[in-house]
Amino acid sequence: MKLPPAVEALKREVFACNLDLVKHGLVVLTWGNVSGIDRGSGLVAIKPSGVPYATMTADDIVVTDLDGRVVEGNKRPSSDLPTHLEIYKAFPSAGGVVHTHSAKAVAWAQAGRAIPALGTTHADHFRGPVPCTRPLTEAEVAEAYEANTGKAIVGLFRGEGIDPAAVPAALVAGHGPFAWGPNAAKAVENAVALEQVAAMAIDTFLVDAAAAPVPSYVLEKHYGRKHGPGAYYGQK
Amino acid sequence: MKLPPAVEALKREVFACNLDLVKHGLVVLTWGNVSGIDRGSGLVAIKPSGVPYATMTADDIVVTDLDGRVVEGNKRPSSDLPTHLEIYKAFPSAGGVVHTHSAKAVAWAQAGRAIPALGTTHADHFRGPVPCTRPLTEAEVAEAYEANTGKAIVGLFRGEGIDPAAVPAALVAGHGPFAWGPNAAKAVENAVALEQVAAMAIDTFLVDAAAAPVPSYVLEKHYGRKHGPGAYYGQK
Amino acid sequence: MKLPPAVEALKREVFACNLDLVKHGLVVLTWGNVSGIDRGSGLVAIKPSGVPYATMTADDIVVTDLDGRVVEGNKRPSSDLPTHLEIYKAFPSAGGVVHTHSAKAVAWAQAGRAIPALGTTHADHFRGPVPCTRPLTEAEVAEAYEANTGKAIVGLFRGEGIDPAAVPAALVAGHGPFAWGPNAAKAVENAVALEQVAAMAIDTFLVDAAAAPVPSYVLEKHYGRKHGPGAYYGQK
Amino acid sequence: MKLPPAVEALKREVFACNLDLVKHGLVVLTWGNVSGIDRGSGLVAIKPSGVPYATMTADDIVVTDLDGRVVEGNKRPSSDLPTHLEIYKAFPSAGGVVHTHSAKAVAWAQAGRAIPALGTTHADHFRGPVPCTRPLTEAEVAEAYEANTGKAIVGLFRGEGIDPAAVPAALVAGHGPFAWGPNAAKAVENAVALEQVAAMAIDTFLVDAAAAPVPSYVLEKHYGRKHGPGAYYGQK
Repeated sequence: MKLPPAVEALKREVFACNLDLVKHGLVVLTWGNVSGIDRGSGLVAIKPSGVPYATMTADDIVVTDLDGRVVEGNKRPSSDLPTHLEIYKAFPSAGGVVHTHSAKAVAWAQAGRAIPALGTTHADHFRGPVPCTRPLTEAEVAEAYEANTGKAIVGLFRGEGIDPAAVPAALVAGHGPFAWGPNAAKAVENAVALEQVAAMAIDTFLVDAAAAPVPSYVLEKHYGRKHGPGAYYGQK
Repeated sequence: MKLPPAVEALKREVFACNLDLVKHGLVVLTWGNVSGIDRGSGLVAIKPSGVPYATMTADDIVVTDLDGRVVEGNKRPSSDLPTHLEIYKAFPSAGGVVHTHSAKAVAWAQAGRAIPALGTTHADHFRGPVPCTRPLTEAEVAEAYEANTGKAIVGLFRGEGIDPAAVPAALVAGHGPFAWGPNAAKAVENAVALEQVAAMAIDTFLVDAAAAPVPSYVLEKHYGRKHGPGAYYGQK
Repeated sequence: MKLPPAVEALKREVFACNLDLVKHGLVVLTWGNVSGIDRGSGLVAIKPSGVPYATMTADDIVVTDLDGRVVEGNKRPSSDLPTHLEIYKAFPSAGGVVHTHSAKAVAWAQAGRAIPALGTTHADHFRGPVPCTRPLTEAEVAEAYEANTGKAIVGLFRGEGIDPAAVPAALVAGHGPFAWGPNAAKAVENAVALEQVAAMAIDTFLVDAAAAPVPSYVLEKHYGRKHGPGAYYGQK
Repeated sequence: MKLPPAVEALKREVFACNLDLVKHGLVVLTWGNVSGIDRGSGLVAIKPSGVPYATMTADDIVVTDLDGRVVEGNKRPSSDLPTHLEIYKAFPSAGGVVHTHSAKAVAWAQAGRAIPALGTTHADHFRGPVPCTRPLTEAEVAEAYEANTGKAIVGLFRGEGIDPAAVPAALVAGHGPFAWGPNAAKAVENAVALEQVAAMAIDTFLVDAAAAPVPSYVLEKHYGRKHGPGAYYGQK
């Protein structure tokens, strides 16, 4: 299939972002994947399943539609594709999705706990705690495991009224983190930030088991410095 | 001795896999070794004892038979060879064996505790807890320490009915991890996964001292995604 | 504007010191900034806001006066500039200032706790505990957040009678570390030392929850070995 | 002064071993030093004080006698030289001495606790716990701090009947680790091993706060595998 130029560009971006996971120390072996979506065509580019980062090429990136049908590429897409698709379908602000087994975020996911917003590093990226899903039921796992993982994330955000554009990450209980962003590169940044705040939060509770979240006015200030109409961090 | 071509190839694979231990950060100084077996000839290729990774060459790899007699090579084999041999003799699925002192797995071994299956990172590689042997007795240590270390691993798996093809690793109490796999490269991957899940498990219990294993249906789902007839992870 | 030669040199030094933050592992993404001051002209050179370290050039360094007005450069200065300026205005000994979100120092800041002087690594750099500010009030955050962060640091040192030349670092509650020194390079060294002692202190309390600071005569001896008239560490 | 050839060779070895500290991740900034002794001439080669590892050359290594008088070199020796000299004077088996502020060993030193022999990684290098000195008195610090640090180490080994050839390392309370060995390279290896076992021991107690040392027959077996007349680890 001849892809639209925007999707060709997306493939290259998704390829580069998958390698960035390695550079940022977020992946071990083949445990991670990045995807990106072209909202115009509704096509998604994603890492192939189980291909080592060291040998993967841009041509290995698989293009699918929002139903998961491969429209271009010779490889099988990441087995986590259905989770990515649920996020794209439910969160219009998501232009890129990242899944890793980064170690400190996994620790919170395995404990089934949300990461509280203990400081401004967190607030710079996440406008509130990074929530953790409920465990999936046996029926959900048996039926359509990866899609239901995505549905559990979406259901959590809707049920608790969390804005996925303001809190662009979730922990899946007993599994690990998913992060997203307006594009694949921003999704990787959020995955990096998530791992850092997960590590800092563990250490914070070692220093003081009763440590408390920052006040909401600090959370709002830091989030607003970087995001939204009043942002003044970075270049114009 | 003129080696069969398959054993020459095995030597090169075992050499490369020993260097991979360094690349994956699993070894410090000379504390680690990888072996592989050619089931056709019953010959085992293993790292030489105490040779630095930086200067080791493929020719330094030692070839022995299943009784530990050197059949080719100028160096002494790893002092842990008898442990590897017990694993090969008892576990037909083992084509490669890895021993390291990777720090987080050692912590569990020194505590004498099995690593529970707290999440899907674990379940992707180990179909249940990674068990820890009983301590060796004084007689076992005095008599044939390294062989008895292997026998303690084998006895543990047989005694508890654990399938060594499904849980390809063990902790030796007060010592450290052994991992195995269908070949040396897969054994290294399992050693990498073991160190990661050991680290994640320590952090998980820091987040929640009462964290619980994943439900068995999640364990089975994730193990089955990657292994066995229904596997759909990776490329065909 | 044509800068004095001393300020041109300062720009290059500040550029190099910002890259040193990366080399020392103190920054992730763009979370850190170094500035330096030329006391003769009262001009400050600082990292531009949100520019990636990998693409930043010496020309991107922004020069401002002590009121924060940009006098040279095409970029916006770090959003933390007003905090740096408060430190320069109040602490005449400060020739360089560093702000990072280095993970272990952040853990102490998020816990709102001073880092006690538990050993000689600490005493070599900080003549007493590294203090932590009170949380800012909602009015302080709303009004002039970054300047008030600097004022909280200054107020803490004045209120507790701490000499900022002898304890060249502070933690901002719920946020992270600031360090300073006679020049930008020494400020980076103090930021490196701070992260190390923060990490060591967490581990020390894991070993013994009741660990105590070193006696004052050890603190004074080690600080005096490296600093002040009787110093005998290093070359003449 | 014209040095004997053995001392010229020692200078080069000591230079290389100081750089090995960096390679093994044991030092930050200039916090570490290695020395070696030529027992024939009684001359000691040691790192210069406060010189960055990146710019240090073999010519910067300082040669002194056992009273600390510089006999060759243009730089001041490490301020820790008198501690090294006490170790050389009291422990004839020491041919090289290493001092670092490696983070995990420092944690044990700051807690004032010996590192127990929790496993075979420890037993491979240290035939028993790595002991920790008492704190120095105010008079000892005022008088001859660095020499008295060495005397505290020596007094500890003599008082408790510890063989410094079998336990080639000590923690100085509130300060950090010293390690030694038959030559500078072996002293570096022991410093590497010490940092590893210090880290493993912290994690072991996180897994099980009641973890116990290995039985003495395992300690003796592992120590004996690598050291002494019955050693069979490594090459002949």
